[in-house]
Amino acid sequence: MPTFRIVLEYDGTEFQGWQVQRQGERTVQGALEAALLQVTGTAVAVVGAGRTDAGVHAEGQVASCRVETRLDPATLQRALNAVLPHDVAVQELSRVPDAFHARRDALGKLYVYRVWNAASRSPLRARTALWVPDHLDLAAMRQALGTLVGTHDFASFQAAGSKPGPTVRRLDRADLEADGGTLRVALEGSGFLRHMVRNVVGTLLEVGRGRRRADSMAALLAARDRTQAGATAPAHGLTLVRVRYGDFRPQSEGLAGKRVDGAEPYS
Amino acid sequence: MPTFRIVLEYDGTEFQGWQVQRQGERTVQGALEAALLQVTGTAVAVVGAGRTDAGVHAEGQVASCRVETRLDPATLQRALNAVLPHDVAVQELSRVPDAFHARRDALGKLYVYRVWNAASRSPLRARTALWVPDHLDLAAMRQALGTLVGTHDFASFQAAGSKPGPTVRRLDRADLEADGGTLRVALEGSGFLRHMVRNVVGTLLEVGRGRRRADSMAALLAARDRTQAGATAPAHGLTLVRVRYGDFRPQSEGLAGKRVDGAEPYS
Repeated sequence: MPTFRIVLEYDGTEFQGWQVQRQGERTVQGALEAALLQVTGTAVAVVGAGRTDAGVHAEGQVASCRVETRLDPATLQRALNAVLPHDVAVQELSRVPDAFHARRDALGKLYVYRVWNAASRSPLRARTALWVPDHLDLAAMRQALGTLVGTHDFASFQAAGSKPGPTVRRLDRADLEADGGTLRVALEGSGFLRHMVRNVVGTLLEVGRGRRRADSMAALLAARDRTQAGATAPAHGLTLVRVRYGDFRPQSEGLAGKRVDGAEPYS
Repeated sequence: MPTFRIVLEYDGTEFQGWQVQRQGERTVQGALEAALLQVTGTAVAVVGAGRTDAGVHAEGQVASCRVETRLDPATLQRALNAVLPHDVAVQELSRVPDAFHARRDALGKLYVYRVWNAASRSPLRARTALWVPDHLDLAAMRQALGTLVGTHDFASFQAAGSKPGPTVRRLDRADLEADGGTLRVALEGSGFLRHMVRNVVGTLLEVGRGRRRADSMAALLAARDRTQAGATAPAHGLTLVRVRYGDFRPQSEGLAGKRVDGAEPYS
Protein backbone atom coordinates (compact mmCIF):
# COMPACT_ATOMS: atom_id res chain seq x y z
CA MET A 1 0.00 0.00 0.00
CA PRO A 2 1.69 3.27 -1.10
CA THR A 3 2.55 6.07 1.33
CA PHE A 4 1.98 9.71 0.37
CA ARG A 5 3.38 13.01 1.60
CA ILE A 6 0.84 15.81 1.21
CA VAL A 7 1.69 19.51 1.57
CA LEU A 8 -1.34 21.60 2.50
CA GLU A 9 -2.20 25.29 2.50
CA TYR A 10 -5.18 26.47 4.50
CA ASP A 11 -6.92 29.56 5.74
CA GLY A 12 -7.53 28.56 9.35
CA THR A 13 -10.25 31.16 10.02
CA GLU A 14 -13.14 28.75 9.77
CA PHE A 15 -11.40 25.58 11.00
CA GLN A 16 -11.36 24.38 14.58
CA GLY A 17 -7.69 23.51 14.16
CA TRP A 18 -5.90 20.60 12.54
CA GLN A 19 -6.88 17.69 14.67
CA VAL A 20 -10.14 15.82 14.87
CA GLN A 21 -11.08 15.88 18.56
CA ARG A 22 -14.84 15.78 18.80
CA GLN A 23 -17.49 14.70 16.34
CA GLY A 24 -18.94 17.54 14.31
CA GLU A 25 -15.97 19.88 14.62
CA ARG A 26 -14.72 21.25 11.31
CA THR A 27 -11.00 20.41 11.22
CA VAL A 28 -8.37 20.31 8.46
CA GLN A 29 -7.55 16.67 9.24
CA GLY A 30 -11.24 15.83 9.00
CA ALA A 31 -11.59 17.66 5.66
CA LEU A 32 -8.55 15.85 4.22
CA GLU A 33 -9.75 12.44 5.43
CA ALA A 34 -13.21 13.07 3.97
CA ALA A 35 -11.66 14.07 0.62
CA LEU A 36 -9.46 10.94 0.60
CA LEU A 37 -12.49 8.76 1.35
CA GLN A 38 -14.44 10.41 -1.46
CA VAL A 39 -11.60 10.06 -3.99
CA THR A 40 -10.24 6.61 -3.09
CA GLY A 41 -13.30 4.96 -1.54
CA THR A 42 -11.23 4.03 1.49
CA ALA A 43 -11.31 5.38 5.05
CA VAL A 44 -7.80 6.72 5.65
CA ALA A 45 -6.15 8.12 8.77
CA VAL A 46 -3.76 11.00 8.08
CA VAL A 47 -0.97 12.23 10.35
CA GLY A 48 -0.07 15.94 10.43
CA ALA A 49 3.38 17.35 11.15
CA GLY A 50 1.99 20.05 13.44
CA ARG A 51 -1.32 20.16 15.28
CA THR A 52 -2.23 23.76 14.49
CA ASP A 53 -4.81 25.36 16.80
CA ALA A 54 -8.18 26.77 15.76
CA GLY A 55 -7.67 29.87 13.61
CA VAL A 56 -4.01 29.18 12.78
CA HIS A 57 -3.15 29.14 9.05
CA ALA A 58 -0.72 27.03 7.06
CA GLU A 59 1.22 27.59 3.86
CA GLY A 60 3.06 24.29 4.17
CA GLN A 61 1.54 21.88 6.68
CA VAL A 62 2.67 18.33 5.87
CA ALA A 63 0.53 15.22 6.24
CA SER A 64 1.28 11.57 5.55
CA CYS A 65 -1.00 8.62 4.92
CA ARG A 66 -1.08 5.15 3.43
CA VAL A 67 -3.85 4.45 1.00
CA GLU A 68 -4.53 2.01 -1.82
CA THR A 69 -5.19 3.88 -5.06
CA ARG A 70 -4.53 3.40 -8.74
CA LEU A 71 -4.31 7.16 -9.26
CA ASP A 72 -0.89 8.63 -9.98
CA PRO A 73 0.19 11.48 -7.65
CA ALA A 74 -0.74 14.32 -10.04
CA THR A 75 -4.22 12.90 -10.61
CA LEU A 76 -4.73 12.23 -6.90
CA GLN A 77 -3.68 15.82 -6.11
CA ARG A 78 -6.11 17.26 -8.66
CA ALA A 79 -8.94 15.01 -7.45
CA LEU A 80 -8.38 15.99 -3.81
CA ASN A 81 -8.35 19.71 -4.68
CA ALA A 82 -11.59 19.28 -6.61
CA VAL A 83 -13.42 17.96 -3.54
CA LEU A 84 -11.66 19.78 -0.68
CA PRO A 85 -13.44 22.88 0.70
CA HIS A 86 -12.41 26.32 -0.62
CA ASP A 87 -10.23 27.11 2.40
CA VAL A 88 -7.82 24.17 2.12
CA ALA A 89 -5.80 22.87 -0.85
CA VAL A 90 -3.05 20.35 -1.59
CA GLN A 91 0.03 22.23 -2.84
CA GLU A 92 2.25 19.17 -3.35
CA LEU A 93 1.66 15.44 -3.24
CA SER A 94 4.28 12.75 -3.69
CA ARG A 95 4.72 9.04 -3.14
CA VAL A 96 7.37 8.43 -0.49
CA PRO A 97 9.04 5.42 1.19
CA ASP A 98 6.68 3.51 3.47
CA ALA A 99 8.69 4.49 6.55
CA PHE A 100 7.81 8.19 6.10
CA HIS A 101 5.82 9.68 8.99
CA ALA A 102 4.93 13.39 8.77
CA ARG A 103 5.19 14.05 12.52
CA ARG A 104 7.99 11.74 13.69
CA ASP A 105 10.29 12.53 10.76
CA ALA A 106 9.92 16.32 10.92
CA LEU A 107 13.32 17.87 11.70
CA GLY A 108 12.12 21.43 12.02
CA LYS A 109 9.25 23.84 11.52
CA LEU A 110 9.05 27.47 10.50
CA TYR A 111 6.23 29.56 11.96
CA VAL A 112 5.58 33.18 11.05
CA TYR A 113 3.46 35.47 13.20
CA ARG A 114 2.19 38.61 11.42
CA VAL A 115 1.38 41.90 13.12
CA TRP A 116 -0.22 44.89 11.39
CA ASN A 117 1.33 47.78 13.31
CA ALA A 118 -0.48 50.95 12.24
CA ALA A 119 -2.95 53.44 13.62
CA SER A 120 -5.91 51.98 11.69
CA ARG A 121 -7.02 48.40 11.18
CA SER A 122 -6.38 46.81 7.78
CA PRO A 123 -9.39 45.00 6.27
CA LEU A 124 -7.20 43.23 3.68
CA ARG A 125 -4.92 41.82 6.38
CA ALA A 126 -7.56 41.21 9.04
CA ARG A 127 -7.66 37.42 8.61
CA THR A 128 -3.90 36.81 8.80
CA ALA A 129 -2.35 39.52 10.97
CA LEU A 130 -2.92 40.82 14.50
CA TRP A 131 -3.63 44.55 14.55
CA VAL A 132 -1.47 46.39 17.10
CA PRO A 133 -1.94 50.20 16.98
CA ASP A 134 0.63 50.94 19.71
CA HIS A 135 4.14 52.17 19.03
CA LEU A 136 6.49 49.16 19.18
CA ASP A 137 10.21 49.32 19.92
CA LEU A 138 11.48 46.95 17.21
CA ALA A 139 15.10 47.07 18.39
CA ALA A 140 14.07 45.92 21.88
CA MET A 141 11.92 43.16 20.35
CA ARG A 142 14.86 41.97 18.24
CA GLN A 143 17.11 41.93 21.29
CA ALA A 144 14.57 39.85 23.20
CA LEU A 145 14.20 37.41 20.29
CA GLY A 146 17.96 36.96 20.10
CA THR A 147 18.01 35.64 23.67
CA LEU A 148 15.69 32.80 22.67
CA VAL A 149 17.88 31.34 19.91
CA GLY A 150 19.62 28.12 20.94
CA THR A 151 18.66 25.14 23.07
CA HIS A 152 16.61 26.17 26.10
CA ASP A 153 13.95 24.96 28.44
CA PHE A 154 10.86 26.76 27.11
CA ALA A 155 8.55 25.76 29.98
CA SER A 156 7.70 29.44 30.62
CA PHE A 157 6.17 29.58 27.12
CA GLN A 158 4.21 26.33 27.23
CA ALA A 159 0.41 26.44 27.34
CA ALA A 160 -0.92 26.44 30.88
CA GLY A 161 -2.25 23.00 31.80
CA SER A 162 -0.01 21.09 29.36
CA LYS A 163 0.72 17.47 30.17
CA PRO A 164 4.08 16.99 31.92
CA GLY A 165 6.85 16.15 29.46
CA PRO A 166 10.16 17.38 28.12
CA THR A 167 10.14 21.16 27.55
CA VAL A 168 13.64 21.64 26.13
CA ARG A 169 13.61 22.75 22.49
CA ARG A 170 16.15 24.07 20.01
CA LEU A 171 15.32 27.36 18.32
CA ASP A 172 17.44 27.89 15.18
CA ARG A 173 16.05 31.24 14.15
CA ALA A 174 14.06 33.98 15.84
CA ASP A 175 13.83 37.23 13.97
CA LEU A 176 11.62 40.18 13.20
CA GLU A 177 11.22 41.78 9.78
CA ALA A 178 9.36 45.04 9.22
CA ASP A 179 7.90 45.94 5.82
CA GLY A 180 5.81 49.10 5.97
CA GLY A 181 3.33 48.46 8.77
CA THR A 182 3.62 44.68 8.51
CA LEU A 183 5.84 42.94 11.07
CA ARG A 184 6.78 39.30 10.66
CA VAL A 185 8.13 37.34 13.61
CA ALA A 186 9.75 34.16 12.25
CA LEU A 187 10.54 31.29 14.61
CA GLU A 188 12.21 28.17 13.26
CA GLY A 189 13.18 25.26 15.43
CA SER A 190 13.31 21.57 16.10
CA GLY A 191 9.88 21.51 17.67
CA PHE A 192 7.45 23.69 19.53
CA LEU A 193 5.47 23.28 22.73
CA ARG A 194 1.75 23.91 22.65
CA HIS A 195 1.06 27.70 22.26
CA MET A 196 4.83 28.35 22.36
CA VAL A 197 4.95 30.69 19.35
CA ARG A 198 1.88 32.62 20.47
CA ASN A 199 3.22 32.93 24.03
CA VAL A 200 6.59 34.15 22.75
CA VAL A 201 4.83 36.74 20.55
CA GLY A 202 2.55 37.87 23.40
CA THR A 203 5.63 38.40 25.58
CA LEU A 204 7.49 40.10 22.74
CA LEU A 205 4.65 42.61 22.27
CA GLU A 206 5.00 43.56 25.94
CA VAL A 207 8.70 44.22 25.28
CA GLY A 208 7.77 46.27 22.20
CA ARG A 209 5.33 48.37 24.22
CA GLY A 210 7.96 49.03 26.89
CA ARG A 211 6.09 47.08 29.57
CA ARG A 212 8.82 44.43 29.88
CA ARG A 213 12.59 44.79 29.52
CA ALA A 214 14.31 43.18 26.52
CA ASP A 215 17.03 41.84 28.81
CA SER A 216 14.52 40.03 31.03
CA MET A 217 14.14 37.09 28.62
CA ALA A 218 17.02 35.05 30.03
CA ALA A 219 15.50 35.24 33.52
CA LEU A 220 12.11 34.37 32.08
CA LEU A 221 13.52 31.22 30.45
CA ALA A 222 15.28 30.32 33.71
CA ALA A 223 12.07 30.75 35.71
CA ARG A 224 10.34 27.88 33.89
CA ASP A 225 7.02 29.45 34.96
CA ARG A 226 4.21 30.13 32.49
CA THR A 227 2.67 32.78 34.74
CA GLN A 228 5.73 35.02 34.30
CA ALA A 229 5.46 35.25 30.49
CA GLY A 230 3.05 37.44 28.52
CA ALA A 231 -0.46 36.68 27.31
CA THR A 232 -1.03 34.22 24.45
CA ALA A 233 -1.22 36.19 21.17
CA PRO A 234 -4.39 35.49 19.14
CA ALA A 235 -4.34 32.53 16.74
CA HIS A 236 -5.20 34.40 13.54
CA GLY A 237 -1.76 36.06 13.22
CA LEU A 238 0.03 32.70 13.11
CA THR A 239 0.97 30.66 10.02
CA LEU A 240 2.86 27.35 9.81
CA VAL A 241 5.04 28.20 6.82
CA ARG A 242 6.96 24.99 6.26
CA VAL A 243 8.15 21.72 7.77
CA ARG A 244 11.67 20.51 7.17
CA TYR A 245 12.63 16.84 6.65
CA GLY A 246 15.92 15.08 5.97
CA ASP A 247 16.80 14.34 2.40
CA PHE A 248 14.69 11.72 0.80
CA ARG A 249 13.82 11.23 -2.81
CA PRO A 250 10.10 11.09 -3.56
CA GLN A 251 9.36 7.96 -5.59
CA SER A 252 7.02 9.94 -7.82
CA GLU A 253 5.68 13.43 -7.62
CA GLY A 254 2.44 15.22 -8.36
CA LEU A 255 1.94 18.58 -9.94
CA ALA A 256 4.93 20.86 -10.11
CA GLY A 257 4.07 24.09 -8.38
CA LYS A 258 5.65 27.46 -9.06
CA ARG A 259 5.82 27.74 -5.32
CA VAL A 260 9.40 28.06 -4.20
CA ASP A 261 10.01 26.11 -1.01
CA GLY A 262 11.06 28.42 1.73
CA ALA A 263 9.87 31.58 0.05
CA GLU A 264 7.46 33.74 1.99
CA PRO A 265 5.48 35.03 -0.92
CA TYR A 266 3.16 37.35 0.95
CA SER A 267 3.37 39.44 4.04
CA MET B 1 -18.00 73.83 6.49
CA PRO B 2 -14.70 71.91 6.41
CA THR B 3 -13.73 69.57 3.56
CA PHE B 4 -12.07 66.23 4.26
CA ARG B 5 -9.92 63.85 2.22
CA ILE B 6 -10.43 60.25 3.33
CA VAL B 7 -8.16 57.37 2.24
CA LEU B 8 -9.93 54.01 2.45
CA GLU B 9 -8.85 50.37 2.42
CA TYR B 10 -11.45 47.71 1.75
CA ASP B 11 -11.87 44.05 1.01
CA GLY B 12 -14.34 44.22 -1.88
CA THR B 13 -15.50 40.60 -1.63
CA GLU B 14 -18.77 41.38 0.09
CA PHE B 15 -19.42 44.82 -1.41
CA GLN B 16 -21.46 45.50 -4.52
CA GLY B 17 -18.85 48.02 -5.57
CA TRP B 18 -18.14 51.60 -4.55
CA GLN B 19 -21.17 53.46 -5.76
CA VAL B 20 -24.68 53.54 -4.36
CA GLN B 21 -26.93 52.64 -7.30
CA ARG B 22 -29.99 50.94 -5.92
CA GLN B 23 -31.52 50.92 -2.46
CA GLY B 24 -30.45 47.97 -0.34
CA GLU B 25 -27.17 47.28 -2.12
CA ARG B 26 -24.18 47.02 0.18
CA THR B 27 -21.65 49.53 -1.20
CA VAL B 28 -18.50 51.15 0.18
CA GLN B 29 -19.89 54.63 -0.47
CA GLY B 30 -23.05 53.66 1.40
CA ALA B 31 -21.07 52.28 4.34
CA LEU B 32 -18.95 55.45 4.57
CA GLU B 33 -21.99 57.75 4.35
CA ALA B 34 -23.77 55.72 7.05
CA ALA B 35 -20.70 55.97 9.30
CA LEU B 36 -20.46 59.74 8.74
CA LEU B 37 -24.14 60.13 9.57
CA GLN B 38 -23.71 58.10 12.75
CA VAL B 39 -20.60 60.01 13.87
CA THR B 40 -21.56 63.58 12.87
CA GLY B 41 -25.35 63.42 12.96
CA THR B 42 -25.45 64.87 9.42
CA ALA B 43 -26.38 63.24 6.10
CA VAL B 44 -23.27 63.65 3.96
CA ALA B 45 -22.64 62.85 0.28
CA VAL B 46 -19.14 61.53 -0.40
CA VAL B 47 -17.34 61.51 -3.75
CA GLY B 48 -14.93 58.68 -4.60
CA ALA B 49 -11.89 58.96 -6.86
CA GLY B 50 -12.66 55.70 -8.63
CA ARG B 51 -15.95 53.82 -8.92
CA THR B 52 -14.63 50.34 -8.21
CA ASP B 53 -16.86 47.46 -9.37
CA ALA B 54 -18.37 44.77 -7.18
CA GLY B 55 -15.60 42.53 -5.80
CA VAL B 56 -12.75 44.96 -6.51
CA HIS B 57 -10.54 45.81 -3.51
CA ALA B 58 -8.80 49.03 -2.51
CA GLU B 59 -5.69 49.82 -0.51
CA GLY B 60 -5.95 53.52 -1.19
CA GLN B 61 -9.31 54.64 -2.56
CA VAL B 62 -9.77 58.36 -1.90
CA ALA B 63 -13.05 60.05 -1.01
CA SER B 64 -13.90 63.67 -0.31
CA CYS B 65 -16.80 65.26 1.53
CA ARG B 66 -17.86 68.44 3.29
CA VAL B 67 -19.32 68.01 6.75
CA GLU B 68 -19.82 70.16 9.82
CA THR B 69 -18.09 68.58 12.81
CA ARG B 70 -16.28 69.72 15.91
CA LEU B 71 -14.11 66.59 15.87
CA ASP B 72 -10.46 66.99 14.93
CA PRO B 73 -9.27 64.74 12.06
CA ALA B 74 -7.64 62.09 14.29
CA THR B 75 -10.76 61.76 16.42
CA LEU B 76 -13.03 61.69 13.37
CA GLN B 77 -10.86 58.94 11.82
CA ARG B 78 -11.00 56.82 14.99
CA ALA B 79 -14.75 57.34 15.33
CA LEU B 80 -15.39 56.31 11.72
CA ASN B 81 -13.26 53.18 12.09
CA ALA B 82 -15.16 52.25 15.22
CA VAL B 83 -18.49 52.22 13.38
CA LEU B 84 -17.46 51.12 9.86
CA PRO B 85 -17.96 47.41 9.03
CA HIS B 86 -14.99 45.02 9.40
CA ASP B 87 -14.18 45.02 5.67
CA VAL B 88 -13.59 48.76 5.24
CA ALA B 89 -11.39 51.18 7.21
CA VAL B 90 -10.12 54.75 7.00
CA GLN B 91 -6.33 54.70 6.64
CA GLU B 92 -5.84 58.48 6.48
CA LEU B 93 -8.10 61.46 7.04
CA SER B 94 -7.14 65.09 6.63
CA ARG B 95 -8.76 68.48 6.37
CA VAL B 96 -8.11 69.96 2.93
CA PRO B 97 -8.92 73.18 1.05
CA ASP B 98 -12.60 73.50 0.18
CA ALA B 99 -11.88 73.24 -3.55
CA PHE B 100 -10.64 69.63 -3.18
CA HIS B 101 -12.71 67.06 -5.11
CA ALA B 102 -11.56 63.43 -4.95
CA ARG B 103 -12.60 62.54 -8.50
CA ARG B 104 -12.02 65.75 -10.48
CA ASP B 105 -8.63 66.46 -8.89
CA ALA B 106 -7.21 62.95 -9.30
CA LEU B 107 -4.15 63.11 -11.59
CA GLY B 108 -3.55 59.39 -11.77
CA LYS B 109 -4.42 55.99 -10.37
CA LEU B 110 -2.44 52.83 -9.77
CA TYR B 111 -4.27 49.53 -10.13
CA VAL B 112 -2.69 46.14 -9.42
CA TYR B 113 -4.17 42.89 -10.72
CA ARG B 114 -2.92 39.74 -8.93
CA VAL B 115 -2.72 36.30 -10.49
CA TRP B 116 -1.83 33.12 -8.59
CA ASN B 117 -0.08 31.11 -11.27
CA ALA B 118 0.46 27.60 -9.90
CA ALA B 119 -0.87 24.12 -10.39
CA SER B 120 -3.04 24.23 -7.25
CA ARG B 121 -5.36 26.92 -5.95
CA SER B 122 -4.20 28.98 -2.97
CA PRO B 123 -6.75 29.32 -0.13
CA LEU B 124 -4.79 32.19 1.48
CA ARG B 125 -4.81 34.19 -1.77
CA ALA B 126 -8.28 33.17 -2.97
CA ARG B 127 -9.94 36.50 -2.12
CA THR B 128 -7.40 38.77 -3.81
CA ALA B 129 -5.82 36.87 -6.72
CA LEU B 130 -7.14 35.08 -9.80
CA TRP B 131 -5.96 31.46 -9.96
CA VAL B 132 -4.49 30.58 -13.36
CA PRO B 133 -3.03 27.04 -13.47
CA ASP B 134 -1.82 27.28 -17.10
CA HIS B 135 1.76 27.93 -18.10
CA LEU B 136 2.12 31.65 -18.89
CA ASP B 137 4.77 33.18 -21.13
CA LEU B 138 5.78 36.15 -18.97
CA ALA B 139 8.13 37.61 -21.57
CA ALA B 140 5.33 37.74 -24.15
CA MET B 141 3.01 39.32 -21.56
CA ARG B 142 5.62 41.98 -20.77
CA GLN B 143 6.07 42.74 -24.47
CA ALA B 144 2.31 43.14 -24.88
CA LEU B 145 2.09 45.43 -21.83
CA GLY B 146 4.88 47.60 -23.21
CA THR B 147 2.79 48.37 -26.29
CA LEU B 148 0.08 49.89 -24.11
CA VAL B 149 2.26 52.52 -22.38
CA GLY B 150 1.65 56.02 -23.69
CA THR B 151 -1.37 57.96 -24.87
CA HIS B 152 -3.74 55.75 -26.85
CA ASP B 153 -7.38 55.31 -27.71
CA PHE B 154 -8.36 52.42 -25.41
CA ALA B 155 -11.84 51.89 -26.91
CA SER B 156 -11.03 48.18 -27.52
CA PHE B 157 -10.67 47.74 -23.75
CA GLN B 158 -13.77 49.66 -22.66
CA ALA B 159 -16.71 47.77 -21.18
CA ALA B 160 -19.25 46.73 -23.79
CA GLY B 161 -22.28 49.03 -23.69
CA SER B 162 -20.41 52.02 -22.23
CA LYS B 163 -21.88 55.45 -22.87
CA PRO B 164 -20.25 57.25 -25.80
CA GLY B 165 -17.46 59.58 -24.68
CA PRO B 166 -13.74 60.18 -24.97
CA THR B 167 -11.73 56.94 -24.88
CA VAL B 168 -8.20 58.33 -25.14
CA ARG B 169 -6.17 57.75 -21.96
CA ARG B 170 -2.53 58.08 -20.94
CA LEU B 171 -0.92 54.97 -19.44
CA ASP B 172 2.28 55.85 -17.56
CA ARG B 173 3.22 52.39 -16.41
CA ALA B 174 2.24 48.86 -17.40
CA ASP B 175 4.39 46.12 -15.97
CA LEU B 176 4.37 42.60 -14.65
CA GLU B 177 6.26 41.40 -11.59
CA ALA B 178 6.60 37.73 -10.67
CA ASP B 179 7.30 36.65 -7.09
CA GLY B 180 7.11 32.87 -6.68
CA GLY B 181 3.71 31.96 -8.10
CA THR B 182 2.27 35.44 -7.58
CA LEU B 183 2.09 37.72 -10.61
CA ARG B 184 1.28 41.38 -10.25
CA VAL B 185 0.16 43.41 -13.25
CA ALA B 186 0.50 47.10 -12.37
CA LEU B 187 -1.23 49.72 -14.51
CA GLU B 188 -0.83 53.38 -13.67
CA GLY B 189 -2.36 56.13 -15.71
CA SER B 190 -4.27 59.36 -15.95
CA GLY B 191 -7.63 57.63 -15.91
CA PHE B 192 -9.26 54.35 -16.79
CA LEU B 193 -12.33 53.43 -18.81
CA ARG B 194 -14.90 51.14 -17.25
CA HIS B 195 -13.48 47.55 -17.02
CA MET B 196 -10.31 48.73 -18.77
CA VAL B 197 -7.84 47.08 -16.36
CA ARG B 198 -9.79 43.83 -16.30
CA ASN B 199 -10.10 43.78 -20.10
CA VAL B 200 -6.36 44.43 -20.49
CA VAL B 201 -5.59 41.59 -18.06
CA GLY B 202 -8.02 39.21 -19.79
CA THR B 203 -6.31 39.96 -23.11
CA LEU B 204 -2.87 39.65 -21.52
CA LEU B 205 -3.69 36.19 -20.17
CA GLU B 206 -4.51 35.09 -23.72
CA VAL B 207 -1.06 36.33 -24.76
CA GLY B 208 0.48 34.44 -21.84
CA ARG B 209 -1.26 31.23 -22.85
CA GLY B 210 -0.03 31.59 -26.44
CA ARG B 211 -3.53 32.12 -27.85
CA ARG B 212 -2.79 35.68 -28.98
CA ARG B 213 0.44 37.18 -30.28
CA ALA B 214 2.28 39.73 -28.13
CA ASP B 215 2.81 41.93 -31.18
CA SER B 216 -0.93 42.08 -31.93
CA MET B 217 -1.61 44.73 -29.29
CA ALA B 218 -0.92 47.72 -31.54
CA ALA B 219 -3.47 46.45 -34.07
CA LEU B 220 -5.91 45.78 -31.23
CA LEU B 221 -5.60 49.40 -30.02
CA ALA B 222 -6.03 50.63 -33.61
CA ALA B 223 -9.17 48.51 -34.10
CA ARG B 224 -11.09 50.43 -31.42
CA ASP B 225 -13.37 47.38 -31.15
CA ARG B 226 -14.20 45.74 -27.82
CA THR B 227 -15.09 42.44 -29.49
CA GLN B 228 -11.48 41.96 -30.63
CA ALA B 229 -9.98 42.08 -27.11
CA GLY B 230 -10.00 39.24 -24.57
CA ALA B 231 -12.56 38.40 -21.91
CA THR B 232 -12.97 40.60 -18.82
CA ALA B 233 -10.81 39.16 -16.01
CA PRO B 234 -12.74 38.51 -12.77
CA ALA B 235 -13.09 41.40 -10.31
CA HIS B 236 -11.54 39.73 -7.27
CA GLY B 237 -7.94 39.94 -8.60
CA LEU B 238 -8.09 43.73 -8.88
CA THR B 239 -7.02 46.30 -6.28
CA LEU B 240 -7.03 50.10 -6.52
CA VAL B 241 -3.67 50.73 -4.84
CA ARG B 242 -3.47 54.51 -4.81
CA VAL B 243 -4.70 57.75 -6.30
CA ARG B 244 -2.29 60.54 -7.11
CA TYR B 245 -3.05 64.26 -6.65
CA GLY B 246 -1.06 67.40 -7.22
CA ASP B 247 0.76 68.88 -4.27
CA PHE B 248 -1.45 70.37 -1.65
CA ARG B 249 -0.84 70.83 2.02
CA PRO B 250 -3.47 69.27 4.28
CA GLN B 251 -4.66 71.89 6.75
CA SER B 252 -4.64 69.32 9.54
CA GLU B 253 -4.12 65.60 9.53
CA GLY B 254 -5.48 62.61 11.37
CA LEU B 255 -3.60 59.59 12.63
CA ALA B 256 -0.13 59.05 11.26
CA GLY B 257 0.00 55.61 9.71
CA LYS B 258 3.07 53.47 9.27
CA ARG B 259 1.73 52.88 5.81
CA VAL B 260 4.22 54.13 3.26
CA ASP B 261 2.46 55.76 0.33
CA GLY B 262 3.22 53.89 -2.82
CA ALA B 263 4.46 50.74 -1.12
CA GLU B 264 2.79 47.52 -2.11
CA PRO B 265 3.07 45.79 1.22
CA TYR B 266 1.58 42.46 0.21
CA SER B 267 1.48 40.40 -2.88
